[in-house]
Amino acid sequence: MKKLPRLLITMGDVAGIGPEIIAKAWPKLLEVGSPTIVGDAGWLRWALDLIKSKREVSEVREPGEVEPDQDTIPCVSSDSSALRNISLGKVSAAAGKAAFDFLCEAIDYAMAGKTDAIVTCPIHKEGLRAAGLSYPGHTEILAERTGTRRYAMVLYGNGLGVMHVTLHMALRDVFRHLTRDAVAEKIGLLNDLLPQLIDRIPRIGVAALNPHAGDGGLFGDEEAKFIEPAVVAAHEAGIDVTGPWPSDTLFVRAKAGEFDGVVAMFHDQGHIALKLLGMGKLVNITAGLPLVRTSVAHGTAYDIAGRGMADEQSLVEAARVAARLASQRNMQ
Amino acid sequence: MKKLPRLLITMGDVAGIGPEIIAKAWPKLLEVGSPTIVGDAGWLRWALDLIKSKREVSEVREPGEVEPDQDTIPCVSSDSSALRNISLGKVSAAAGKAAFDFLCEAIDYAMAGKTDAIVTCPIHKEGLRAAGLSYPGHTEILAERTGTRRYAMVLYGNGLGVMHVTLHMALRDVFRHLTRDAVAEKIGLLNDLLPQLIDRIPRIGVAALNPHAGDGGLFGDEEAKFIEPAVVAAHEAGIDVTGPWPSDTLFVRAKAGEFDGVVAMFHDQGHIALKLLGMGKLVNITAGLPLVRTSVAHGTAYDIAGRGMADEQSLVEAARVAARLASQRNMQ
Repeated sequence: MKKLPRLLITMGDVAGIGPEIIAKAWPKLLEVGSPTIVGDAGWLRWALDLIKSKREVSEVREPGEVEPDQDTIPCVSSDSSALRNISLGKVSAAAGKAAFDFLCEAIDYAMAGKTDAIVTCPIHKEGLRAAGLSYPGHTEILAERTGTRRYAMVLYGNGLGVMHVTLHMALRDVFRHLTRDAVAEKIGLLNDLLPQLIDRIPRIGVAALNPHAGDGGLFGDEEAKFIEPAVVAAHEAGIDVTGPWPSDTLFVRAKAGEFDGVVAMFHDQGHIALKLLGMGKLVNITAGLPLVRTSVAHGTAYDIAGRGMADEQSLVEAARVAARLASQRNMQ
Repeated sequence: MKKLPRLLITMGDVAGIGPEIIAKAWPKLLEVGSPTIVGDAGWLRWALDLIKSKREVSEVREPGEVEPDQDTIPCVSSDSSALRNISLGKVSAAAGKAAFDFLCEAIDYAMAGKTDAIVTCPIHKEGLRAAGLSYPGHTEILAERTGTRRYAMVLYGNGLGVMHVTLHMALRDVFRHLTRDAVAEKIGLLNDLLPQLIDRIPRIGVAALNPHAGDGGLFGDEEAKFIEPAVVAAHEAGIDVTGPWPSDTLFVRAKAGEFDGVVAMFHDQGHIALKLLGMGKLVNITAGLPLVRTSVAHGTAYDIAGRGMADEQSLVEAARVAARLASQRNMQ
């Protein structure tokens, strides 16, 4: 039997739902890969108690020391005294710092070839900030620590990958970030990633910015100035890409199977569609990194943390997609 | 048996799918109301031939002269010599002018109490323009001819009504049209309309403009400056309204039944969601008019006109909603 890819699952912010979704997902994680947790052993034991699981946590110094199985969860854990007094569902510097450290450890193991992929549980931006770490999220930490300049987040679900040209900024600021190069870069990154996820040459649709794709210049000129030239250039470079398409019909066509990838111009354009198309199974992938990284597509859910009711489905799906990406990379 | 509401169905641009969807929809239109067509009798006969229907067109001078039934379609028709040489699927001044005239006739009959509602088939903006009529669409013609200043389009489907604060303009221009008054006006118009469509006090959710509803001011200030004050004022005036909500989760919550109405800030925000939630059954309603008017939620579909394959479902649904609105108005 072929060996399953080695996965490092980072616990994220322990005051959120990370520990409990790991505890709940464990049997399913074992089906898709060979998982090791990077996190706090104490919080993992607490989460296993919470869901009345008899599984044991085995603290290891580095991944691979202990093989994961039905009864044993290997956990790369460091000194956790600072995490003992964390309150569930509350922003804290200690939880923010620990979440950052778990991620950095996982990145270093990945760069050293000691894992095939990283799967991340959610961190809390305010927690990072409380710890003096001014990163908007995982992606920027991953990019910085691996020295990556061209990267982007892909939201992937139901066979469709969506990449955004702009993301966490005021809608008013989108206009000055929307350039031909930015659109072209995203088309390229998406086109590089998708063949590892689907078994065909990817068909990419690019969204317009304005209603009715600008209606021939009547409602804005960004289509003609930035988007169309990028699409034309990418198409000439051999990519199966079309657009700019009116965004309201583009996602209906994508849902019907006409596209494997969509490049959206701004956050809500892609997110409205993706969340309506099925939130539970959405996975976040960082394209362009020298390592495989996927993530759950939800946040720390502080409001329900510690109740054992958090849905582990997105974590399982993230692990499944990470395992697939890792296998595809190893085949290349 | 209660008498069904009288409906005037305008044919729209005869080079589009208007004539054939009327011909196909006829038996279902009879179930929801007492329909009379305002259009061209020649094109209606052509459409009946196209779908191999044996029904007769009865030309009348005004609505009510002939009762509609399974075999007879009353059609208020005027001199149609200019429409004889129209080519299917082509913009023409003659078709644009005729579509305008059909609508104006229907408005005049409605204002004179000779119909209970108007249901419109699609017109083509370029056709209007070719005829020297510079209206973006039906709504503006209706508002002008009835002397209405506060009005708005509602897209209604699956028990959810969506109104937009801004609509057919470049995304870049949205910012200067987004005011507290504009948001408040739309909340009020939607709150006035919805009770005629649903059997409860409507619950309205207002969308944010920026991602994550601005994330506490980090991604833009339009929420705090314009949207929230309008929501607070409307709530204080007794309307069941909340927001601003992040638009990506708002529509998921609306789909789950948490809201009956949504106020969206710009075209694609609402349209991406509505089209994913089910395009076929969407109906366009103009709120704020002194008459009842609904419309199909699609265009002239020049590309498939004359093939008999156009889907009449939206027209039937528009007639059903018009009949309901007319009944509710008569009860008030």
